[in-house]
Amino acid sequence: MKYGYFDDSQREYVITRPDTPKPWINYLGVDSFFGIISNTGGGYCFYRDAKLRRLTRYRYNNIPLDSNGRYFYIKDQASGEYWSATWQPVRKELDKYECRHGLGYTKIAASYSSIETEVLYTVPKGETLELHQVKITNSGNTVRQLSLFSFVEFCLWDASEDDRNFQRNLNIGEVEVEGSTIYHKTEYRERRNHYAYYHVNEAATAYTTDRFAFTGTYGSLEKPEAVETGELDKQIASGWSPVASHQIDVTLEPGESKTLVFVLGYAENEPEKKWQSPGIINKEVAHSSIKRFSTPESVEQAMAEIQSEWNKLLAPYLIKSGDERLDRMVNIWNPYQCMVTFNMSRSASYYESGVGRGMGFRDSNQDLLGFVHQVPERARERIIDIASTQLLDGGAYHQYQPLTKRGNADIGGNFNDDPLWLILGVGGYIRETGDIEILDEKVDFENESSLAAPLLDHLDRSFTFTLNNLGPHGLPLIGRADWNDCLNLNCFSSEPGESFQTTANQEGRTAESLMIAGLFVYAAKEYAEILRTLGKEDKAESVDAAAAKMVETIDVHGREPEWFLRAYDYFGNKVGSPECEDGKIYIESQGWCVMAGCGHQDGFARKALDATEKHLGTAHGLVLQHPPYADYHLNLGEVSSYPPGYKENGGIFCHNNPWIMIAEAMLGNGEKAYDYYKRIAPAFREDVSEVHGQEPYVYAQMIAGKAAARHGEAKNSWLTGTAAWNYVAITQHILGIRPGYEGLIIDPSLPADMGKVQIERVFRGCTYKITLQPAASGASPSIIVDGEVTHSNVITPQPEKTLSVLATY
Amino acid sequence: MKYGYFDDSQREYVITRPDTPKPWINYLGVDSFFGIISNTGGGYCFYRDAKLRRLTRYRYNNIPLDSNGRYFYIKDQASGEYWSATWQPVRKELDKYECRHGLGYTKIAASYSSIETEVLYTVPKGETLELHQVKITNSGNTVRQLSLFSFVEFCLWDASEDDRNFQRNLNIGEVEVEGSTIYHKTEYRERRNHYAYYHVNEAATAYTTDRFAFTGTYGSLEKPEAVETGELDKQIASGWSPVASHQIDVTLEPGESKTLVFVLGYAENEPEKKWQSPGIINKEVAHSSIKRFSTPESVEQAMAEIQSEWNKLLAPYLIKSGDERLDRMVNIWNPYQCMVTFNMSRSASYYESGVGRGMGFRDSNQDLLGFVHQVPERARERIIDIASTQLLDGGAYHQYQPLTKRGNADIGGNFNDDPLWLILGVGGYIRETGDIEILDEKVDFENESSLAAPLLDHLDRSFTFTLNNLGPHGLPLIGRADWNDCLNLNCFSSEPGESFQTTANQEGRTAESLMIAGLFVYAAKEYAEILRTLGKEDKAESVDAAAAKMVETIDVHGREPEWFLRAYDYFGNKVGSPECEDGKIYIESQGWCVMAGCGHQDGFARKALDATEKHLGTAHGLVLQHPPYADYHLNLGEVSSYPPGYKENGGIFCHNNPWIMIAEAMLGNGEKAYDYYKRIAPAFREDVSEVHGQEPYVYAQMIAGKAAARHGEAKNSWLTGTAAWNYVAITQHILGIRPGYEGLIIDPSLPADMGKVQIERVFRGCTYKITLQPAASGASPSIIVDGEVTHSNVITPQPEKTLSVLATY
Repeated sequence: MKYGYFDDSQREYVITRPDTPKPWINYLGVDSFFGIISNTGGGYCFYRDAKLRRLTRYRYNNIPLDSNGRYFYIKDQASGEYWSATWQPVRKELDKYECRHGLGYTKIAASYSSIETEVLYTVPKGETLELHQVKITNSGNTVRQLSLFSFVEFCLWDASEDDRNFQRNLNIGEVEVEGSTIYHKTEYRERRNHYAYYHVNEAATAYTTDRFAFTGTYGSLEKPEAVETGELDKQIASGWSPVASHQIDVTLEPGESKTLVFVLGYAENEPEKKWQSPGIINKEVAHSSIKRFSTPESVEQAMAEIQSEWNKLLAPYLIKSGDERLDRMVNIWNPYQCMVTFNMSRSASYYESGVGRGMGFRDSNQDLLGFVHQVPERARERIIDIASTQLLDGGAYHQYQPLTKRGNADIGGNFNDDPLWLILGVGGYIRETGDIEILDEKVDFENESSLAAPLLDHLDRSFTFTLNNLGPHGLPLIGRADWNDCLNLNCFSSEPGESFQTTANQEGRTAESLMIAGLFVYAAKEYAEILRTLGKEDKAESVDAAAAKMVETIDVHGREPEWFLRAYDYFGNKVGSPECEDGKIYIESQGWCVMAGCGHQDGFARKALDATEKHLGTAHGLVLQHPPYADYHLNLGEVSSYPPGYKENGGIFCHNNPWIMIAEAMLGNGEKAYDYYKRIAPAFREDVSEVHGQEPYVYAQMIAGKAAARHGEAKNSWLTGTAAWNYVAITQHILGIRPGYEGLIIDPSLPADMGKVQIERVFRGCTYKITLQPAASGASPSIIVDGEVTHSNVITPQPEKTLSVLATY
Repeated sequence: MKYGYFDDSQREYVITRPDTPKPWINYLGVDSFFGIISNTGGGYCFYRDAKLRRLTRYRYNNIPLDSNGRYFYIKDQASGEYWSATWQPVRKELDKYECRHGLGYTKIAASYSSIETEVLYTVPKGETLELHQVKITNSGNTVRQLSLFSFVEFCLWDASEDDRNFQRNLNIGEVEVEGSTIYHKTEYRERRNHYAYYHVNEAATAYTTDRFAFTGTYGSLEKPEAVETGELDKQIASGWSPVASHQIDVTLEPGESKTLVFVLGYAENEPEKKWQSPGIINKEVAHSSIKRFSTPESVEQAMAEIQSEWNKLLAPYLIKSGDERLDRMVNIWNPYQCMVTFNMSRSASYYESGVGRGMGFRDSNQDLLGFVHQVPERARERIIDIASTQLLDGGAYHQYQPLTKRGNADIGGNFNDDPLWLILGVGGYIRETGDIEILDEKVDFENESSLAAPLLDHLDRSFTFTLNNLGPHGLPLIGRADWNDCLNLNCFSSEPGESFQTTANQEGRTAESLMIAGLFVYAAKEYAEILRTLGKEDKAESVDAAAAKMVETIDVHGREPEWFLRAYDYFGNKVGSPECEDGKIYIESQGWCVMAGCGHQDGFARKALDATEKHLGTAHGLVLQHPPYADYHLNLGEVSSYPPGYKENGGIFCHNNPWIMIAEAMLGNGEKAYDYYKRIAPAFREDVSEVHGQEPYVYAQMIAGKAAARHGEAKNSWLTGTAAWNYVAITQHILGIRPGYEGLIIDPSLPADMGKVQIERVFRGCTYKITLQPAASGASPSIIVDGEVTHSNVITPQPEKTLSVLATY
């Protein structure tokens, strides 16, 4: 069952009923000001930091679900009836409802009793504000007298204190009103130099700024007292909960329309220019922003700029295949999600409350693989930020703070896979850009400029870190956890509520990870290529040798009869072996060992992937391990803490599915690779939206596994490394258009029935117009560039030129 | 305007309309299991720790306000109409509504379309459960077919993570259902050994355990889908939000009643006895609790025990005066609030979210003064706990953790008044109990048993701490703050959101506090009395000498022309002086310097108190300082951060008003003392409930001051040191029945028109039946004990005896 459809020409998902299985959201903003918005107007906005500079209040997991946002009530003065232009919060059944989530904007259209509304929400480029444009049209035959009420509730800036410290919060709320602009200035009188404002480009009939005055003391947003009575009270909030609500009375002739532009903005002042007069804030910044967006034309202009920005961002990789679902994932939604993940990391979604977690060392390197071709300069900056937090021994802080860009000592390190991802991130960046000079860049260790060293040195220490931390079998020690944060082999936690990762580490030098082993070999290949590009052949050979030795070790100590082992635990016992009662087979080591090249020669890789399908495969994707743990295991940690079928305990953890796709593609099994791709790709799951539950246009972190009561139900959409890895799997390994150090690699691994696929790839200034098509029956695959057969699949870029590539598969 | 009335015979406040200005709440439980409940059934319950063991979910500051609790819906199957037995959450206008908040229980009665309900909520003594007894009566003339729906939403135990960590929380919810009992067992499969359950003593027609199944995905508690359709779906929650809802279908003949007993409980198992069978929890503990409360008779029995417990707790001090408002404050509500404050410290109220703050060193010592006569054994234990966290230099951690009882290093120390309160706490305990042996008790320093020393040694170091920390004028250094946590003279904070108290301390040895100076002299008198009781006369004299010196210093450096100075700041400038632009006069130093005896001889004390009335007095109480700060002052800190008229910036901070009452009483001005008492005492403010806003039966921390938009509006009711100090002021200083080291002191300071007051005071096993009455015209006050005139006002207790005391004033 579907709740809407894709409008690819507009790059929009169009939701046609408001009661989606869960709120389906979108993001506004690309640089410093961001909004989260649901298909019914719910959500909130913030400046840079979702925790410390939150403008509006949002209550997660509330009853009713998703019941705060930027709302518009329309009231018919004659009948007294009122409804919401975005369905929520009144939730009156509308004659028509349509939500269009586009790239950086959301439009919600509604109709009730011959009054049509269209609300557009967006954040203009380079601005620290949301625009809410409301168009009301009388599509009936009689003159209508209407009142429009806006509503936002202000957050008192620090979202974490905002729902904690009431003995303070309920006393400090302050606002000012000037014309049709409501200024929120809580704490401005003391240490803040910033304020928020909510403006409408028309004289307001009335307003209120006090929540209780709007809803009534015990009233709801569904039936606010002020809307019921039809009159706002012009109250100036003093403590309790400041809100902003405008009332605009409008008379519309039949066929007449009215368009209003609301601006919800954030402004900062220099400390010495805070005040206009005693107690009255200096509003110059707001005035100037308001002026810039005082007309519908200015909104149109802002929208045009956003469109053109996205044209640019999406241009580097565009395809046309026979399947529009594939095209919209590759051309629009997957890269869009990658950009949002770049902007948000894991901070603010409908599952991430915006008050926790820094940037992950590992997360950020992986995310980078998905957006590097869109914003290479920002990827470069991100790499420097990440590498600057690296420790001298090559290890890493597991997270760093986005504001300070310093490693987070509370979480600490000893997640032993972390350093290797830096090699993949840097490799991905250089392959895309050719910017080999980045390796000479002097980059801090531990954020200390006195410890700065060339980035290449960071890579070397990352590589050496694994070799310095091998266990009894010669496999990499796992530390607190590897990529699977929940496989905690050295952290024995028995205290409820304690972090499974940061509890006392057993300092064990026994528990080893096959996933890191595979990752090490894979990263070694990347590193050796980098070294060869620099002409450092000797060093590259020593790296190859270390990798070869690890492959041998995996062959000897990492193979079970039919698949790769996952780990050895603290006691040296196997994890992910047929000998285990539960968790006999894990997905991560199958993916990474095959991606590393293990068992390609002797058929073991094939055997392992067949076992993966057999034991982990479901119609909704591949589960993380099988069977899930029925009980909690002190020596395994969080992985065994979840109810079977959820999250890391036998859930379909979408992040790791593409590793199997890539492994299958490497073994030449495009059929299976693409099959796995389609099982979890959101656009391909649109038809089962009632089961999947989350947005059909972006990936979710997890889909409930076969042991779960709600098998197939997704959770935690948007902010997940899933976006980047699926993008890499489909674009670089299945479609097989992959940046290499010397040029663009053409290496498709597609199912036979895929037919013709056309790809336009802009790479290092060169435009490749690529056609992939099945080889003629019996013929070998071939590549023709500008009409000439080539025997290499690496096509050197010719800047400013267009190359025509025909490849058969 | 009133929203109810006091029913003193039942020791209840009876609320007669549900839409009180804000939710008016009550507490259930006295030992380990506690509930907070509003007059419409809102709130939550927890086992011991409101943060870590919360059973039910509550959303603070929500829209609608106060919209989660333990709810009962009644649905008429014939008409389809439904309503709430407690008004919320349906909020349908009821034919009758009445809420009776009693001591440890709340009863809510309602009537709609001839169906009467009465819901009783309580926590039996020694049990870890809430009882909800629902009686439904058909008071009409026709047979009625009804469905009753219960509803609670479970919190996933850790209330702080519960509204933060959704990527985990929404996956882990687990329940079991057995008969009419719904078991909440989230995380029980891993590290928890405890579960919750919600039971009803009757076969349920149906149930659900999944919130979305109850409300519908976007539904509200006001109009839950399951109640609308009239059928629960017997769903077993798997992730998302576990709830418990029973449906009981009932047919009632005219005049017929039905009573149901619901048990909402908490149970722990031994780790090795967690399971009944694989995956099925061992329910023995729940079964046995359920069995104990399976009948209305058992509920009646539990209620009788609670009543009798309160008879015992309240017995030590009972009065009968000509004013029932005074009687109900002294006999019932003020001691009740003191007990709640003892149980909760500052953790869980409708303003304290239950997830922050430890026990305050200073708070706990002051609270103790209010409840020591009710539970002397527990007061003793509390003293040992507090003193164990003291530092070796006599300083103190500002807070300690209730679970670990260890000092909180995050907050740290250097609040230089802290140590002195320990002397007052211990003094108060010994005066009440005569238990001088406590001083020999070996008590840890810094929670280290190797550092343990007799409690007397702790008092000595507390006393010496002040002398070791004097500033340039010989006045006590203030450190981070004194009692006024917001007067931060050494913490210059310019960063938004930073704690004003724990920001980098300037290590200044200049800023001095007159409030600590007064407190020091007052504490010195208490300490000297303790020493004399031990026969340590020499030591007592040296203490007296130090106090006398401090009095001199105050006289020289602490007097402004008409009142006591408040402090010297970091730069040596005055705070609370006519020289200051704002904050010219503060309340704390007026109270404490006069309480210390300063200026009694030369009339300066009188002058200072007159200035206090003139500058700080309002009809709603005395504001903290005047004028409030218009701007933020880096060198004053949080005190200047609040909008004028709120909190410490010119609010009526009720905690310090009794210090002025006591000071007035000491100067013999009972008229004024009692006047101040009445201005803020909740029962005396009942008539202006629409202005006051908070409960008319308990104190709030603050009433908005004269500079505030909502002057007279109270905030932060229940958990405040206000309860203890007002109790001390009225019982010990205005009524003047005060425990002394040698006996009970009779020292009334009453207004002339008070008339006769009868007091029954049980003190060290002796019952004093005291009559206070105005002296005959022209006669001096006298005291007659058992018919004999006595010349001392200290009446030695005669254990097991009853003494009759007649005192004129």
